[in-house]
Amino acid sequence: MPEPTESSLLLYAEVQRFYARQMQQLDLGKAQSWAQTFTADALFDVPTLPEPVRGRAKLVAAVERARAQLAAAGERHRHVMGMVDVLERPDATLDVRSYTTVYASAVGGASRVHRVCVCEDVLVREDGELRVARRKVTRDDLP
Amino acid sequence: MPEPTESSLLLYAEVQRFYARQMQQLDLGKAQSWAQTFTADALFDVPTLPEPVRGRAKLVAAVERARAQLAAAGERHRHVMGMVDVLERPDATLDVRSYTTVYASAVGGASRVHRVCVCEDVLVREDGELRVARRKVTRDDLP
Amino acid sequence: MPEPTESSLLLYAEVQRFYARQMQQLDLGKAQSWAQTFTADALFDVPTLPEPVRGRAKLVAAVERARAQLAAAGERHRHVMGMVDVLERPDATLDVRSYTTVYASAVGGASRVHRVCVCEDVLVREDGELRVARRKVTRDDLP
Repeated sequence: MPEPTESSLLLYAEVQRFYARQMQQLDLGKAQSWAQTFTADALFDVPTLPEPVRGRAKLVAAVERARAQLAAAGERHRHVMGMVDVLERPDATLDVRSYTTVYASAVGGASRVHRVCVCEDVLVREDGELRVARRKVTRDDLP
Repeated sequence: MPEPTESSLLLYAEVQRFYARQMQQLDLGKAQSWAQTFTADALFDVPTLPEPVRGRAKLVAAVERARAQLAAAGERHRHVMGMVDVLERPDATLDVRSYTTVYASAVGGASRVHRVCVCEDVLVREDGELRVARRKVTRDDLP
Repeated sequence: MPEPTESSLLLYAEVQRFYARQMQQLDLGKAQSWAQTFTADALFDVPTLPEPVRGRAKLVAAVERARAQLAAAGERHRHVMGMVDVLERPDATLDVRSYTTVYASAVGGASRVHRVCVCEDVLVREDGELRVARRKVTRDDLP
């Protein structure tokens, strides 16, 4: 366990900031902007998809499909990431493990916890920006 | 999108810290201290008030009314802010958009998600301290 | 209220990072690693124990008992800390007050808010690392 350094603590703040914006883009349905927070060939492995997908076009399609389903159901979803644990690898990539709670609100109804997930990302830096190169999400309610 | 700078990352930590204390003051019913985290003429536009109000006296009154209602209902509320997205404006004000989840616990009963909200603030710096100059909160369960 | 300084903002990020890892260790059942995030003689006062306990062996036992109960119930728990308020004391210890929301998911069932707690810690630095010297947790649903 290395001593905490100024650069690693600033990086920690940067990772938190990165996810705050990324989750908001997702919930706002900004599929294109959201997809840009992944690398061009990112691997995306989440319970809402039948199998892992690769690349931004598939990410955009997944967001747009989810948006349509939410609209049809009259619900709003918010993805809230917490307990972000960042491990800096020697090659400067980051292993980030965090929790994602998804809240659902029925418009005209009640709000509730929809899902509790664990999100395991590999982050890389491209052109000065953090991007997700690989995401694996697991749901606590699934075996 | 500017490169992340050390000052903007420190500011990000400061904004998080600001909200942590502000929310705790609210939940502790420290109405006066909480109101001091707003500018003297802050505009406060939230779903629990029939119309937007301006100024600390109105903020204090709103907190005290909410406290009385909670006490009568035998409940405790916690406001948890997450996914704090900070945009620094050229005039040094901050546009901050975040999610606020309100948890309610019946004393002697159960805990639950009460509200899921989006909070849009304008933050300014006064005498070295961040303060909210304008707050607009919307509830996910309202049309 | 002192002006925010760079060192106190870096410390704020460090405290957040500390808790993210500590909560993940707890939820992963890494009892020994988790116990190492407390001082050797830490005082641990939580609602799940009939009385306060002291020392890492008792902490490990508490985690292992909780793990066995969760396994028997077919549930997963996630501890999410939020609204972390840090007060630096003149002796360099930290008073940290935060909220902990515990989410429960029945494997093959639904996810829900299980508990909403307030966590009051005293943090110290040992060998360069933050550690909890004292923890007091209260549940919002208990009188």
